[in-house]
Amino acid sequence: MVKNIKLKIAYDGTGYHGWQTQPGKNTIQGTIEEAIYTVMKEMKQKINLTVSGRTDSGVHALGQIANFISDTNIPQDKIKIALNANLPNDIRILESEIVPMEFNSRFDAHDKTYMYQIYNDRVLSPFYSRYSCFVPSRLDFDKMEESLKCIIGSHDFKGFMATGSDVKTTVRTIYEAKLIYERPIIKLYITGSGFLYNMVRIIAGTLIDIGKGIKGSECMEEAIKTKDRTALGQTAVSRGLFLISVNYKKMLDM
Amino acid sequence: MVKNIKLKIAYDGTGYHGWQTQPGKNTIQGTIEEAIYTVMKEMKQKINLTVSGRTDSGVHALGQIANFISDTNIPQDKIKIALNANLPNDIRILESEIVPMEFNSRFDAHDKTYMYQIYNDRVLSPFYSRYSCFVPSRLDFDKMEESLKCIIGSHDFKGFMATGSDVKTTVRTIYEAKLIYERPIIKLYITGSGFLYNMVRIIAGTLIDIGKGIKGSECMEEAIKTKDRTALGQTAVSRGLFLISVNYKKMLDM
Repeated sequence: MVKNIKLKIAYDGTGYHGWQTQPGKNTIQGTIEEAIYTVMKEMKQKINLTVSGRTDSGVHALGQIANFISDTNIPQDKIKIALNANLPNDIRILESEIVPMEFNSRFDAHDKTYMYQIYNDRVLSPFYSRYSCFVPSRLDFDKMEESLKCIIGSHDFKGFMATGSDVKTTVRTIYEAKLIYERPIIKLYITGSGFLYNMVRIIAGTLIDIGKGIKGSECMEEAIKTKDRTALGQTAVSRGLFLISVNYKKMLDM
Repeated sequence: MVKNIKLKIAYDGTGYHGWQTQPGKNTIQGTIEEAIYTVMKEMKQKINLTVSGRTDSGVHALGQIANFISDTNIPQDKIKIALNANLPNDIRILESEIVPMEFNSRFDAHDKTYMYQIYNDRVLSPFYSRYSCFVPSRLDFDKMEESLKCIIGSHDFKGFMATGSDVKTTVRTIYEAKLIYERPIIKLYITGSGFLYNMVRIIAGTLIDIGKGIKGSECMEEAIKTKDRTALGQTAVSRGLFLISVNYKKMLDM
């Protein structure tokens, strides 16, 4: 019998060319699909992992969600164990679960939470060099915090997108955006209905520029009004970005 | 004028064959000595870094202390910056300081603190695979905690040493030993006058075996009495071990 299998996945993105399978490149999707092939040898059809959203090269995940269709007889809790036995240490299946056939990890996602990590000290700890953006200069935390308020709510975030992106609408809803200071680390947590290409990294880079005084704290509000990318700051490096969680509608909570 | 330069160093030991220089191998000492050569080209003599204590392959440090003699004219605070510019990201000089000529980072060390990290969950997070010992089975935290009490104080720790070690005395003083549970991570913090070869890893491995029920919580006490290594448990993997700090006598606090 055909089943729909949902996976909750954590990965250290350092060694990968992002999520999406690319010929001749080491990707998260490619590595997991290979493990599925190894574990479910009886499957004749091609496996295609659907994901809540692709992550870029170097981006990490604590709770990425993907799903795939399979006729495997492996019990749902054993799928996790079997896949982990065939995956490298930097990719781990945290949960495996059989879900209703109509569940789609991409289209059913209600909201996502990302975290962006800034290491703000004179010297970068060796334990954070793969997991943060290093900023040795002094940052004005209060100004950074103040500037974030205006992005809450539904807005046209056209200015907060890497140029050349092709999407139907650039309106997104941000439910929560907060900064937490755990000296010497500043963490940006942001929850939204979805994010445009590079949106979280543009917000993080702009916050850094505001903290440094290169940009004024009103520039986010201006970019929402003018939809102008140039009102904002740099796009912060990918290694500071973590996909924390993806939330779904009630359907899966039953 | 000849100066004595003290360095406080952090490193991720994953990619290194331990502290000590070995021909043809990537070591922490070798890498730092090379950076010193590059920065202090005027020095004609061979540099020899003295260290508070060597660390094994895979062991990490947050506050290793080393010192070397140099006739450099670089101001003390700039030495750190110059060295970091010539070191890989996984080794960082946190502080550089000119100290009295008689200071010796090895012989003047009064006490050291190590931390051993155990990741106790069903699945190992990709972000801890380089920095912990993974134990998926249930551990009895109370028994582990109880068993630690007996090691406080001055004892002959002959049974807590890797066989074949050559030391003058096997008596050491443990000032503090505590376990902290930050689910799913168990951290052992241990401060002592010094540690025998593999001593912290043997204590950590024995704690894991006590937690699992393979060893009784009285086995540490027994090993102190009998001086018998076989009373204790496994030697835990090096990647879970961190040298946290080294403390010196008042001399340096002036």
